[in-house]
Amino acid sequence: MAFSDSLHAKAADLTKLSVEMTTAAGSGHPTSAASLAHIVAVLLYDHMRFDPAEPDHPAADRLVLSEGHACPIVYAAAADLGIAIGREPFGRRAMTPEDVRSLREIDSPLDGHPNPAEGFPFFPAATGSLGQGLSIAAGIALSARLDGSSKRVFCLIGDGESREGQVAEALDFLVDYDLKAVCPIFNCNGHGQADEVSPQQGIERLAQKLDAAGFDAQVIDGHDPLAIRDALEVHAASADDPNRRPVAIVARTVKGWGFTDVLGSEAHGKAVGAAQQADALGAVERTAADLGAHLTEGDLARPPIPPAPSPRPKRSSVPPPNLAEALQALGKQDALERGKLAPRKAYGTALKLLGRSNPRVVALDGDVCNSTHSKEFHDDPELGPRFFECKIAEQNMISCAGGLASGGKVPFVSTFGKFLVRAYDQLEMGLISRFPLKLVGSHVGASIAADGPSQMALSGVAFFRSLAGVETRDGRPLVYVLNPADAFAAYALTLAMAEHPGACYLRTMRPNVPFLYDAQTEFRLGGHHVLHKGGDLLIAATGYMVHEAQRAVAMLRDRGIEPTLVDLYSLPLDGDTIAALARENRGRVLTVEDHYGASFGSAVADALAADGNGFRVEQMYVRKLPKSGRTPDDVLGYLGLSAGDIAETAIGALGAQAAALEEPVGAS
Amino acid sequence: MAFSDSLHAKAADLTKLSVEMTTAAGSGHPTSAASLAHIVAVLLYDHMRFDPAEPDHPAADRLVLSEGHACPIVYAAAADLGIAIGREPFGRRAMTPEDVRSLREIDSPLDGHPNPAEGFPFFPAATGSLGQGLSIAAGIALSARLDGSSKRVFCLIGDGESREGQVAEALDFLVDYDLKAVCPIFNCNGHGQADEVSPQQGIERLAQKLDAAGFDAQVIDGHDPLAIRDALEVHAASADDPNRRPVAIVARTVKGWGFTDVLGSEAHGKAVGAAQQADALGAVERTAADLGAHLTEGDLARPPIPPAPSPRPKRSSVPPPNLAEALQALGKQDALERGKLAPRKAYGTALKLLGRSNPRVVALDGDVCNSTHSKEFHDDPELGPRFFECKIAEQNMISCAGGLASGGKVPFVSTFGKFLVRAYDQLEMGLISRFPLKLVGSHVGASIAADGPSQMALSGVAFFRSLAGVETRDGRPLVYVLNPADAFAAYALTLAMAEHPGACYLRTMRPNVPFLYDAQTEFRLGGHHVLHKGGDLLIAATGYMVHEAQRAVAMLRDRGIEPTLVDLYSLPLDGDTIAALARENRGRVLTVEDHYGASFGSAVADALAADGNGFRVEQMYVRKLPKSGRTPDDVLGYLGLSAGDIAETAIGALGAQAAALEEPVGAS
Repeated sequence: MAFSDSLHAKAADLTKLSVEMTTAAGSGHPTSAASLAHIVAVLLYDHMRFDPAEPDHPAADRLVLSEGHACPIVYAAAADLGIAIGREPFGRRAMTPEDVRSLREIDSPLDGHPNPAEGFPFFPAATGSLGQGLSIAAGIALSARLDGSSKRVFCLIGDGESREGQVAEALDFLVDYDLKAVCPIFNCNGHGQADEVSPQQGIERLAQKLDAAGFDAQVIDGHDPLAIRDALEVHAASADDPNRRPVAIVARTVKGWGFTDVLGSEAHGKAVGAAQQADALGAVERTAADLGAHLTEGDLARPPIPPAPSPRPKRSSVPPPNLAEALQALGKQDALERGKLAPRKAYGTALKLLGRSNPRVVALDGDVCNSTHSKEFHDDPELGPRFFECKIAEQNMISCAGGLASGGKVPFVSTFGKFLVRAYDQLEMGLISRFPLKLVGSHVGASIAADGPSQMALSGVAFFRSLAGVETRDGRPLVYVLNPADAFAAYALTLAMAEHPGACYLRTMRPNVPFLYDAQTEFRLGGHHVLHKGGDLLIAATGYMVHEAQRAVAMLRDRGIEPTLVDLYSLPLDGDTIAALARENRGRVLTVEDHYGASFGSAVADALAADGNGFRVEQMYVRKLPKSGRTPDDVLGYLGLSAGDIAETAIGALGAQAAALEEPVGAS
Repeated sequence: MAFSDSLHAKAADLTKLSVEMTTAAGSGHPTSAASLAHIVAVLLYDHMRFDPAEPDHPAADRLVLSEGHACPIVYAAAADLGIAIGREPFGRRAMTPEDVRSLREIDSPLDGHPNPAEGFPFFPAATGSLGQGLSIAAGIALSARLDGSSKRVFCLIGDGESREGQVAEALDFLVDYDLKAVCPIFNCNGHGQADEVSPQQGIERLAQKLDAAGFDAQVIDGHDPLAIRDALEVHAASADDPNRRPVAIVARTVKGWGFTDVLGSEAHGKAVGAAQQADALGAVERTAADLGAHLTEGDLARPPIPPAPSPRPKRSSVPPPNLAEALQALGKQDALERGKLAPRKAYGTALKLLGRSNPRVVALDGDVCNSTHSKEFHDDPELGPRFFECKIAEQNMISCAGGLASGGKVPFVSTFGKFLVRAYDQLEMGLISRFPLKLVGSHVGASIAADGPSQMALSGVAFFRSLAGVETRDGRPLVYVLNPADAFAAYALTLAMAEHPGACYLRTMRPNVPFLYDAQTEFRLGGHHVLHKGGDLLIAATGYMVHEAQRAVAMLRDRGIEPTLVDLYSLPLDGDTIAALARENRGRVLTVEDHYGASFGSAVADALAADGNGFRVEQMYVRKLPKSGRTPDDVLGYLGLSAGDIAETAIGALGAQAAALEEPVGAS
């Protein structure tokens, strides 16, 4: 039993180091870590095909720690194996046991939960908000399949965590896409944070559920080295055998394995106190000795990394055509003749042409590709294999896109903007991983009208705006918000998203709106466009409301008022230029948008209040809950956002300020 | 076969009316509606115990239409049965077949998706964002159990929709709480929007999954009246029998039943064109005739409403004590002596005392009650039955809270603020229903430090602020945001939340922060508190940053600068008062918060930019992605948000403005 004896010794060493590092940090989850000691030891010392010097090698197997709080056990193995750490690929070094003492320090790469972006590239993604890892693993496996790589992806999932519905979504997705390279491993230690795990997530039920979902569930003792190894070999065999069901492992484990006498199995998120540390380490040593632990050189040996994937296809040297050319080439010039097109349709066309020119571009959708128009990508025979139908399960879809990004793909993910709300936590986690997610929410704003508020994306701008206020290390916004007002803008911005190395959130409208621009108009992330130049008032509108504002401008001109109209199609906005425009308009600003507040208008207020030169900003946005109406006009009228409402508000604003602001506000 | 014949005739009539109303509206989902024709007919004409004149009678059975887009079939039955419609309980009238022609009109109670708040009280909750209905049904059943009511709750779930992980969460919850009064009915028509439903949501798989989750799955033909009736009777029998498993129904149905020749089973979200309407109606009639449809008076008859629940216990006439009294009464006066207490602990104490005084107050938590401190409620023997442990499944938790609210309870729902993000879509739907949800996110802001960004709630203020900008019909904000800086504030605001008839979002901090206030300090929703009065600069801080700002004020005073410090503990804020404070401080404002932007500082900018009198607002917030640090000071230093950073920024702001603003800005 040389393997078992050596493995027990390793498991004990990793457990001890996990205890020590969390005691040093004064916080952390040593009991969760210890429940994974043997599984992690078998994976990292015996089964996974990877090189400690290059843990993110494109052909290497990957480990996603869905129950991120258990990370000390992986840090312990990394310290022992000398796995490379460091934020930049060229600034890495081998980790040492001394490093673990920096756990959770402000300048340490060892964050409290897995985060490759802080310098621990062995983890392919940030985790810690539970239930997301298996979807990430699915995305990594999809990416590997596109690359022709046979890598395997292991995912460690807590039993309590498996209550998250996203885990069920991921299991279905694995079966739909026959992703047997993914090995879900459920860590059943029976204890959550506040209480025991429900019997619904007990070993028996979990195995039955896996079976019902189409898996071959291997139920094992998660502290038995041979059982773990055997189960992983069953998985490996099934991964390559078209006649076998996908394998999942359900492991019975002990929370706080080795030192339950000291902390107790029900302890969660509690470090061993310094005074008790010696007791805990002694208890682990005794437990291991009772099992005959004894490390022999050579007992544990990882297999070599599988063959490298085929070189990636190169992207075309010819950039995609502009929208006018694209529509003509695709036989859709009637839209040009009609003079209007829904931005969501322009998105579909851009996505298809992007896909043809850039092999890294992939597309995901959640059963609404015929509404978001990602169907154009899906229906293209060349691109079909890079389209992933995620069905009605947005959380899995977004985390899966993260996995694809982790594998080097550029994922465009579309659904109704309202349904993206479902996955805000998943996309926040993706941004913590610094994944270049291209998120596309269609049917935004009140202009969808008839379907009512359950289908309207109204809170998305505020949410993403708060994320857009975060700067990445290279000085870019964490995410750009894009809200194009016509098809030319939507098309150009979709192409710009693909070129941008970071994340973007594009909002596409449903209605066929008239063109405001043409193929020569330039659009850029963070940009805006001045549609009319006046001097009496700055009207700043976005999306559908640019069209309403145009109508309002015509009404105002009839009354001798000459406003400037700017299309704010992106956040963060260029505050200095907006301030200059406001100054040219006597400091008077009216903002107009057809979603909730704290959005574009508030961003204008931020910029002008920071400038401080006596601007006055009035905001029009959705101030009551919308309902169904048969036409956009019905709903905008109900919300007080019609062109007439805008014109009236503008006149009111001018009247109120007439006395105070006879002269233009100077730049001082 | 009188029952069958009559039922077929009803199903055909309802289908025809569904076709007609969607054709009149020019949009909608007649094919989804038709797939439910027989099931809805059996439920509403034969099985459910309810009174059309009072569809929300406290003892009546309820129907949750999780696949909300199928609502025309229910509207059709309501029109035929004369179910009461109208927004206000005293302004209702019986619906007529003529009413259905107003479907989706701006002044119609018949919204595009179910929405009781627009005047269709037969539906207990708004639906339309998929996968949420079964959790709502669970909450309604919990509420009924607390009331001693034996009502049953039927939930219609689409097969494609059942891919949403939340459905799995709800099934587990139903088993955990033995909620056999809920009858999940899966409508398996095999077609989603963009494509066929995955085999993972096929009839066979669904039945296996239900079995594995602990259900007795009744697989039936969903267009066979007798099979439907029998399955519902099996459910009714099991609901009252402790020895039987919970029953779920899996119904094989036809999308577009009756008129597949006209639209095709794959049609989704498409109304029949006016030119085709006669064809469609004729096809339905022929289909029904082939089945022997023939309506006979008396064949269909609903049973009576079950006995009314026992009268609700009255709330105590003695209001809960203040925090100082409460801590003394509970033997926790040591906190008073130490002079500090974590706001989350004050929340737990307030919740417990609220529970004792108000029997409508219930509490839900997601496996972190020992962190959020809702455990104080859980551990109280009198209150335990009103505490619901939802495990690690936040989506189900929030929708379930909505169901409890629908049943008249006041649900306080707590988890880490970060994990609430998981359920933003569910809570948006709850707000569309106008449910008085009391949402509590703990461990907010960067001050949690060691656990890192995956556990920090940083985007929540911006998201909720956008919702707080919406006004309800009675002139209140749709939700209040509350971000107390100390335990006295957290305690008082928790009590205020319970008194408020609408929704609130309370953020509770993890650290034991010093008291800023005492038991006599008054707090109100939408309020703020001035901690120091100066005249040189207004510092507006919130939450943990009020403490940092206090330290900064001391540093500034050492340099001869006298700032005003205001604690912004709530949104929407009182813009006029903030503007007045700013004016007293020469128009100079510095805002400070330890979460992402578009939040409190931006709300201040909104207010001052609307006022327009030359204010200058500088905002400090989390502008880069945080990471773990061992102490709050480490992380705030990393983020540039320490007391020293605040003082320096304040001095810089004064310097920059010194020339321009020698005199206080007048109110002009």
